[in-house]
Amino acid sequence: MARIVMKFGGTSMAGIERIRNVAQRVKREVEAGNQVAVVVSAMAGDTDRLVGFCREASALYDPREYDAVVSSGEQVTSGLLAIALQAIGVPARSWLGWQLPIRTSDAHATARIESIDTAALDESLAKGEVAVIPGFQGVTDANRITTLGRGGSDTSAVAMAAAMQADRCDIYTDVDGVYTTDPRIVPRARKLARVTYEEMLELASVGAKVLQTRSVGLAMKEKVRVRVLSSFDDTRDEDGYRGTLIVGEEEVTDMERQLITGIAHDKNEAKITLVAVPDRPGAVASIFAPLAGTGINVDMIVQNIAHSTGSTDVTFTVPSAELARALDTLEKAKDDIGFQKVLHDTRVAKVSVVGVGMRSHAGVASTMFTALADRGINIQAITTSEIKVSVLIEEDYTELAVRVLHTAYGLDAEG
Amino acid sequence: MARIVMKFGGTSMAGIERIRNVAQRVKREVEAGNQVAVVVSAMAGDTDRLVGFCREASALYDPREYDAVVSSGEQVTSGLLAIALQAIGVPARSWLGWQLPIRTSDAHATARIESIDTAALDESLAKGEVAVIPGFQGVTDANRITTLGRGGSDTSAVAMAAAMQADRCDIYTDVDGVYTTDPRIVPRARKLARVTYEEMLELASVGAKVLQTRSVGLAMKEKVRVRVLSSFDDTRDEDGYRGTLIVGEEEVTDMERQLITGIAHDKNEAKITLVAVPDRPGAVASIFAPLAGTGINVDMIVQNIAHSTGSTDVTFTVPSAELARALDTLEKAKDDIGFQKVLHDTRVAKVSVVGVGMRSHAGVASTMFTALADRGINIQAITTSEIKVSVLIEEDYTELAVRVLHTAYGLDAEG
Repeated sequence: MARIVMKFGGTSMAGIERIRNVAQRVKREVEAGNQVAVVVSAMAGDTDRLVGFCREASALYDPREYDAVVSSGEQVTSGLLAIALQAIGVPARSWLGWQLPIRTSDAHATARIESIDTAALDESLAKGEVAVIPGFQGVTDANRITTLGRGGSDTSAVAMAAAMQADRCDIYTDVDGVYTTDPRIVPRARKLARVTYEEMLELASVGAKVLQTRSVGLAMKEKVRVRVLSSFDDTRDEDGYRGTLIVGEEEVTDMERQLITGIAHDKNEAKITLVAVPDRPGAVASIFAPLAGTGINVDMIVQNIAHSTGSTDVTFTVPSAELARALDTLEKAKDDIGFQKVLHDTRVAKVSVVGVGMRSHAGVASTMFTALADRGINIQAITTSEIKVSVLIEEDYTELAVRVLHTAYGLDAEG
Repeated sequence: MARIVMKFGGTSMAGIERIRNVAQRVKREVEAGNQVAVVVSAMAGDTDRLVGFCREASALYDPREYDAVVSSGEQVTSGLLAIALQAIGVPARSWLGWQLPIRTSDAHATARIESIDTAALDESLAKGEVAVIPGFQGVTDANRITTLGRGGSDTSAVAMAAAMQADRCDIYTDVDGVYTTDPRIVPRARKLARVTYEEMLELASVGAKVLQTRSVGLAMKEKVRVRVLSSFDDTRDEDGYRGTLIVGEEEVTDMERQLITGIAHDKNEAKITLVAVPDRPGAVASIFAPLAGTGINVDMIVQNIAHSTGSTDVTFTVPSAELARALDTLEKAKDDIGFQKVLHDTRVAKVSVVGVGMRSHAGVASTMFTALADRGINIQAITTSEIKVSVLIEEDYTELAVRVLHTAYGLDAEG
């Protein structure tokens, strides 16, 4: 007998017909002899509707009240799934965040799970009941409802799996797994049977939006085996696997290990260049300290060698949504930093090659630069990490670059 | 400084614009120096939507899960009203049923309030915060959410007022008070400034659907001064009153006291006649015991004098919705009861004259019968209580009968 957590997203819970489909999937796991906890999202669109009400009521809404309002979407679907399970003969009950309880920080609307009391839950599971748990919600020590921020249901599922010491956490979604790259760009992209937490973090944060990044980080920390699979498609691959398993590096066998796991891209970056920054100690700090102070995420940073004039150009990227705020912050700090002028460009994209195998192989970057150069794609900036090489290019070349790299690293499926 | 409870129904909470209007009304009471708790319904239509989901998920839904689902409608509006109040500078917070808590029986979907802990609430009110409380919901000792049955928010408001020892419980609704009769039938119906609990019970249960009957019973028991008034219309009557105050009989002065307070009608009755029931002891019991056993409400009962054949006809009414079930029950008990045949008629209506003054006046019934006879309206059955005389008539004559009686008892407004 295994303990598993199954998590279903908003598309899987959108309407009673789909909830019935979810109930059937849960029933199969119960009949296979598993103890099952199900974590559910609100019906697709429902959270947006509730957030819209709060914003309409006041732009400066109280996040404690926002949480009471917005958490109701998952309360509804968890009750409905419990009813749908009972209707097909599966004993089930809903456990709201405050009922277990799932204790969180009091950072309303962006709370973090601190502890989950599983005593009552264990008793219920032992009786053969399925536990249906609304994702995205918890409760503070002061007994106020909290929510975890958008996409938080993935984090709820992983945290439940960790607290329950579950053997597996299955995340059902509207895609059937994690691919080597976006299949809409590269039709010959391959589904990965396994991927490491580290790779998934890079793939998720740079564009493959299958799982909330925070949930992957938590899974890594708590060593929760996560599987991503489709709610709608039961197809198994040739090895009998469904979906993609996200595991620790030690579980990936040498045979499975690829030099490069996947290619990611992100068009939501904007490039900022500060022209003629004085080339003296502390100059770079004077740029990034005020940006960090206003909570702006800076990603790729390139500092060219100094001009003979004793100044240098500094280029970096920020999320497009934060560009206006970043420019404003820099203008205010202009005298302090001492740059001549600021340039910016939103028509850029970041393309990354990701793979744990990279650590033990040379030549990855070289292959990348050559492949892109051969197609006339100019590289504007480069960053590397232990398992990733990213380049910034002109946005119009994004799809071409992804295709070229997918082929260059031998990721294209056969046939 | 007074303590008041304000209750707003679904029409008053339907959408953010209306919730803002409610916030303004609450603000006025706060600025007048009152401590205020607000009880809210779900947005109009929202409860129906949620109930529909449960029914679609399973006709035999678990009422515990139904309660978790359906209670979310009031959770949403209470959070939104708290936000709207804060937005206009009124400190406010929502208190969900389980947060106060409002303890109820575990009769899910039809729970009864057993106790309300006001310790935390008192502290909050003392700090000058408005308490926003979702109506219709509570929590069991086992920490499961309950609901009180449809229209239960009125009961929540009265129970809150009793627990808080509030000076007044104002029920804001889409009508501006309680009228002498339905103004759609009699345009010259008058709004009543005061009505007693007993009269309100009779008026509510026989057709004037302004307040849930249960809430009036509770107000009477707990001596809560209830006022019914409009959310949308601020008009005051010539004495400066708004709405209708529902109070104990001792508060109605002799000057205000009318012989007859109002005329009610109810078209949702069906008449059943059992022909030729044996005229022996126990015969009547053999009719009503099986009906009571299946939970059917029997109202007016008329037993004619015995025929010379040693049998009698028994006529009574049941709610139209229960007619089929009643006939089925009677057929099954036919041998036991020994009647010859059963007749039924849904084209009937009950018209009632109600008034506490009736207790000390003779001639009320006589005036009624004469007025109806003068217009050729045939009376099929009669029942009386201390403060009410009801007659059963052919349904087509309902409006005529109401108008005739309204005039006969001198209730028509001048002008």
